[in-house]
Amino acid sequence: MNTELLRNPIQTRERVTDARQSGFSVGLVPTMGDLHAGHGALIDCARRHDDFLAVSIFVNPIQFNVASDYEKYTRNLDRDFEFCRQRGVDLVFAPDARDMYPVPLKTHVDVSGLTDLLCGEFRPGHFRGVATVVAKLFHILPADRAYFGEKDAQQLAVIRRMVTDLNFPVKIVGVPTVRDSDGLALSSRNQRLSEAERAVAPRLFKALCAVRDHVAAGCKDAAQAKEAGLAVLAQESMIRVEYFEIVGADDIERREVIDGPVLAAAAIWLGETRLIDNVSVHG
Amino acid sequence: MNTELLRNPIQTRERVTDARQSGFSVGLVPTMGDLHAGHGALIDCARRHDDFLAVSIFVNPIQFNVASDYEKYTRNLDRDFEFCRQRGVDLVFAPDARDMYPVPLKTHVDVSGLTDLLCGEFRPGHFRGVATVVAKLFHILPADRAYFGEKDAQQLAVIRRMVTDLNFPVKIVGVPTVRDSDGLALSSRNQRLSEAERAVAPRLFKALCAVRDHVAAGCKDAAQAKEAGLAVLAQESMIRVEYFEIVGADDIERREVIDGPVLAAAAIWLGETRLIDNVSVHG
Repeated sequence: MNTELLRNPIQTRERVTDARQSGFSVGLVPTMGDLHAGHGALIDCARRHDDFLAVSIFVNPIQFNVASDYEKYTRNLDRDFEFCRQRGVDLVFAPDARDMYPVPLKTHVDVSGLTDLLCGEFRPGHFRGVATVVAKLFHILPADRAYFGEKDAQQLAVIRRMVTDLNFPVKIVGVPTVRDSDGLALSSRNQRLSEAERAVAPRLFKALCAVRDHVAAGCKDAAQAKEAGLAVLAQESMIRVEYFEIVGADDIERREVIDGPVLAAAAIWLGETRLIDNVSVHG
Repeated sequence: MNTELLRNPIQTRERVTDARQSGFSVGLVPTMGDLHAGHGALIDCARRHDDFLAVSIFVNPIQFNVASDYEKYTRNLDRDFEFCRQRGVDLVFAPDARDMYPVPLKTHVDVSGLTDLLCGEFRPGHFRGVATVVAKLFHILPADRAYFGEKDAQQLAVIRRMVTDLNFPVKIVGVPTVRDSDGLALSSRNQRLSEAERAVAPRLFKALCAVRDHVAAGCKDAAQAKEAGLAVLAQESMIRVEYFEIVGADDIERREVIDGPVLAAAAIWLGETRLIDNVSVHG
């Protein structure tokens, strides 16, 4: 089976619709490219559920709240296409920005409540841009299932809620975070780390695990559990903490008492690079 | 062919998807019920284009900015169902509010720019509610074409823009306004008019036609054309003008010079009843 590359939204919809009409179930993996083993896990998971596999590769300008972050985001379509081809992807949709936004956008999808904390607090407009482009992708590539990484837990919660609220005919599948052997969650941003920063980066996951261990040991108090995590980060002066929160996994609202499943989620800066991660905690 | 009545969104999507998979094209006429000959024209137009015809009947709470207006909106499903049955509609989707909003809504679709003037100015949140429910309906009833009346010109422009911006896989068809013999545009609100108010109501259309005639006679100045229309309304003291504007048909932005196709659009109050209407004007 060949991997097809399409840039035009209308042709892409026709191709996916043809696949569905031929009786294939369709899986969609939306990405911003610069693919790594984390995306590989999404593709592998999709392959297990669906017959026809589409990957979108689009660095979405409207979800970047800092223009320079958009500009420096790594683009390497040849490499990404080869990555998809080797994994048996059927269709790579890689539009230009003008294919996706041919006229100035006047319509936006907003998910409120779930976007007040975590990345939503520090990246104004980010999730509006994410929800809007994902709504577009769901219409261009009408899939049975769409696959998103649990590393971007708030994004996953926002998309799940959008799908429920707007009755999108797609099932959202969350896929566990893939980590390096030292625990660092895979991210295309990791390659921007200096050697010294890379050596320190696994401490983010260790801090989140410290929360989980603290709760497993019987602590129900979110403030105390959070202190246990922050103490792990405080040991390293290179780390600047942007946020460190214990929130409900679905509503992304702060919890004071941990009496059910929650997320410990954090964002840190190492030099110019921002890293995020989260772990599930069962109170 | 029998007319089917469904209330459940999931069953409804399955029914429409089955029709499409059977090779039928699907036409959707979204309504708030209380059906009249204006809706009849939408249904007749849909019948000419599409094989399988669905009508949704749902008084959408989130598009009413005044609660009492929502409460007093006429509901008569038996009568509306019979109206659809007689016109050969295949499926009537008539959900309860809890079918459409089973959990508090956190997601909204906003169309900016087009909603600053006309009804958007005087009914805050109205078009957000319209865009959001129409997005839901397009997912519940995945149609090839959806039919909307030109009487609600701003709504039509908002929905067209939403469909373009979010790549909805549906074609929007605008259907000309149906009028009584004296020119009054059909509306379920007309039945709320007293006899005296009903006698005065056609003056709204006359005023809009006065704009058209003024432009046809060579006037390019929007302010002058507007004065000609307002003069027609000023002759009747029962009429309170909410807005009277000359705007671009697609962008719903004010025009000072009429050098292309525009809309003359107005809203008036007669007692407790608000009426809207518009006419196309070619400069």
